[in-house]
Amino acid sequence: MQACVTLYQVETDIPSLHDNRGDLDRLRKALAMKLSGRTPVVPFQQLAHVAEKFRESGFKGTAVINHLPHGPELIDFFPTHPNVLPGMALDLGTTHLEASLIDLITGKVLATANRPNSQLVHGADILERIHFATKNDGLDVLHQAVIQSINDLTAQLGKTASVSPAKIRALSVSGNTTMIHLFLKLNPYHICREPYIPMANAPDPCPAYELGLDIHPAARVWILPNVGSYFGGDLISGILACDLDRKEEICMLIDVGTNAEVVMGNSEWLIACAGAAGPALEGGVAQMGMRAGKGAIEHIKIDPETGSIKYTTIDNTPPMGICGSGIIDLVAGLYLSRMIDIRGKFRPNRMGDRLIRDKESPAFVVAPAEETVNNTPVIISQIDLDALIRSKAAMYSILTTLINQVSMKFEDLENIFVAGAFGRHIDPRQAVVLGMLPDLPLQTYVPIGNSSLKGARKILLDASTWDRCHKIAKKITYIELNVNQEFMIRFSGSRFIPHTDHTLFPSVPFFSED
Amino acid sequence: MQACVTLYQVETDIPSLHDNRGDLDRLRKALAMKLSGRTPVVPFQQLAHVAEKFRESGFKGTAVINHLPHGPELIDFFPTHPNVLPGMALDLGTTHLEASLIDLITGKVLATANRPNSQLVHGADILERIHFATKNDGLDVLHQAVIQSINDLTAQLGKTASVSPAKIRALSVSGNTTMIHLFLKLNPYHICREPYIPMANAPDPCPAYELGLDIHPAARVWILPNVGSYFGGDLISGILACDLDRKEEICMLIDVGTNAEVVMGNSEWLIACAGAAGPALEGGVAQMGMRAGKGAIEHIKIDPETGSIKYTTIDNTPPMGICGSGIIDLVAGLYLSRMIDIRGKFRPNRMGDRLIRDKESPAFVVAPAEETVNNTPVIISQIDLDALIRSKAAMYSILTTLINQVSMKFEDLENIFVAGAFGRHIDPRQAVVLGMLPDLPLQTYVPIGNSSLKGARKILLDASTWDRCHKIAKKITYIELNVNQEFMIRFSGSRFIPHTDHTLFPSVPFFSED
Repeated sequence: MQACVTLYQVETDIPSLHDNRGDLDRLRKALAMKLSGRTPVVPFQQLAHVAEKFRESGFKGTAVINHLPHGPELIDFFPTHPNVLPGMALDLGTTHLEASLIDLITGKVLATANRPNSQLVHGADILERIHFATKNDGLDVLHQAVIQSINDLTAQLGKTASVSPAKIRALSVSGNTTMIHLFLKLNPYHICREPYIPMANAPDPCPAYELGLDIHPAARVWILPNVGSYFGGDLISGILACDLDRKEEICMLIDVGTNAEVVMGNSEWLIACAGAAGPALEGGVAQMGMRAGKGAIEHIKIDPETGSIKYTTIDNTPPMGICGSGIIDLVAGLYLSRMIDIRGKFRPNRMGDRLIRDKESPAFVVAPAEETVNNTPVIISQIDLDALIRSKAAMYSILTTLINQVSMKFEDLENIFVAGAFGRHIDPRQAVVLGMLPDLPLQTYVPIGNSSLKGARKILLDASTWDRCHKIAKKITYIELNVNQEFMIRFSGSRFIPHTDHTLFPSVPFFSED
Repeated sequence: MQACVTLYQVETDIPSLHDNRGDLDRLRKALAMKLSGRTPVVPFQQLAHVAEKFRESGFKGTAVINHLPHGPELIDFFPTHPNVLPGMALDLGTTHLEASLIDLITGKVLATANRPNSQLVHGADILERIHFATKNDGLDVLHQAVIQSINDLTAQLGKTASVSPAKIRALSVSGNTTMIHLFLKLNPYHICREPYIPMANAPDPCPAYELGLDIHPAARVWILPNVGSYFGGDLISGILACDLDRKEEICMLIDVGTNAEVVMGNSEWLIACAGAAGPALEGGVAQMGMRAGKGAIEHIKIDPETGSIKYTTIDNTPPMGICGSGIIDLVAGLYLSRMIDIRGKFRPNRMGDRLIRDKESPAFVVAPAEETVNNTPVIISQIDLDALIRSKAAMYSILTTLINQVSMKFEDLENIFVAGAFGRHIDPRQAVVLGMLPDLPLQTYVPIGNSSLKGARKILLDASTWDRCHKIAKKITYIELNVNQEFMIRFSGSRFIPHTDHTLFPSVPFFSED
């Protein structure tokens, strides 16, 4: 396994009247012998520096080689073998950026860090960003904002690991298609317009200085390829993280971020689709919704008999809001305790003093004011519930549409990998109760954490992953749901808890309408 | 024959829900089918522009492809097929720059231009430039100066041909090793110090914007490779220009610029050497010396009996000075009319009123004040004569050393190609009289003009020339004269007209010392 940047020790003959090759030509020839005969290209920006270092070091030392898809590239030279060779893997999310600093020699994680995407002030979600990008200098503003966010994150990683950012030799980036467009300053206008065509799905690795990144100028930026407008490199990362493309049995991967993206298949075939199911599940839509972080209610139990509520928060602090997994627990609990009906509507006669009015909408008090961090009750309103029902209906419809495309049943799946914060925090049982995920044995569901970041790390640590990614991207059959009739029909049927057709969810209690 | 940049007409399917590839991916795939399956790389700087142009053009039009040694590169897209595709070939000389603007589609020359090298104010010759480059910010100053000269020349070409410089798609550069170092901002310090090692002999083609050139930013700069410190890409150009590397018979190529550089061989082998023989021959040393340009005395006839002088000037204007070919004619004439002796010293009793004193040195009046453009006589002093004798001795010694290396005789040569202004203007017979060139039938000598520029054109118009150049560079055996004992001995013997051993010049009258 060879990283995307590696070190090569070389020692050449000393120049003489009988061997008057140029310094750089001498070095390149010696390296070609270690690179299967391929002479490394030297970018102009590094030409003088590399030649000088080689001479200063007495014509021996360690060369730094980028393993680009079209051949090796020589970018630096050290007199002695460095102890670490830092690379940075980045999950470029719509709301959050998460990154690891990795030693490309050992694979060891040197530091991790995360921070909000500075583009947030210009639009909460992808559609708003695309809209902003297509006005005046919006694209430039968004591009600069994300570059600044990455540079801030780089500084943070560098500080934690005591590594100068200028020593970072590679950056891999995994993100959705829109985020990658904004990162590369590509106009995202057509992403959200039928037939939903990105400008570029598979950009070549480009030098960091061309993007204005604060890492080593000749570090290459390796971008995970997209498959379509709503299927980004972050999901290719997910496939890498769970090795879906190498499985013998058929598995499924679900990634709920800003969108819900789903892939199914094995080593022989891959099929995918994506749709807007995310925001409510991610905590981005509910009024009290928040990202899965400190103070978020992540789990809730409601006693079906008494209606009493127990919750836990992340880091066990007083609650500030409620994250996706908390909302799912809550709504499943509300259903099982019959405080909402199968359409997700409040049943006031079951709710007692938990029912309040919030603005124009009835709402349910999850945590009263006296329990919370800021003396504001954590509530969920009917509006939030309606949004959740739409999201869960979308999710189940996506899964059903996909499995029907290949004439299979959910029972045929060996595993369903669930990526992201959603996968890490949700209780699959509660999602099944809601009718969001199919009614399968719970061990079918495997959380895989931040798979976007994991895939980005793989690209850094194994240069052959680049090829693998592009093969995956080519192999995937992508189903466009935005215009899929079947999906629209299934969506309507899924807007009940657990489903209109309750034989699909044999393990979930069914309550006929009162 | 394929130019280094070419156009490809493409038309792809229109994107649809059933074919949702990204714009650029669609274009690259269509191009790969025309590029033997090789998918072109797209530099980050061109990514958005190319994708947008492709879409704007309705997914059909003409792509611009750089044929780089490691694979194709897609850099632009036009809705319609352009009529011209300008490329620029540059002879980057120490004192002068000469360039052609060429249409890469037809090979037609659109314009030519020349101008002095702005580095001249920082040093007249290579050694002075190297010295200047190694002081403080000297390298940067020289680099900027030559870039500015090139940009000025580009503007001039553009104006003549009515082509915007930004439309120039490639630049090929042929120059001596020091000039190429300064052009690329590489430290030339070791070029003039034993064992005379350049920093880089074979740089990769780099994008024009990285060098600050005013042509299209993604145009690649193709630099003819050097063989050694005193054997530059300009001589590789010379080999290309006379096809020396493709000859069946053995030939020789002589290029007299700032240095005298000589190559000999055929399609099987090439041997070369270079030495400081040039300045006096180029008109750079003699007090009244000038480059072969308007007002330069280029030919002189002296009646051996009467000593009367006839001269012609370039463009037939009153004389301003005397160029290399004029000096050779003059000195040969002085010798045949016995106004100088075999050591090149004035013989006052033969000179009449042509003999004057100039400062501390005796001098010969070539053109009296009343005939010249600025009322100053054109003269040649004993000091100038001594310099010329040294130069001609160096030249002949170089040729002899080289031919002896392969145990051959001058008579074995099919042709001697003489490059540059020197080759264009000199009368080989006069050079033979002086003992500068071997005493061979005059048809052996073939002037080939500015072969540096011709080679640079070949690189532009035939992409396979890049490989050919590098093969030539690898094939050449280079003899370092600076430390060659044989050369030093031969040099002493050659400091007579025509030579100490006058049997070497049977056609030249020999005068025993008076």
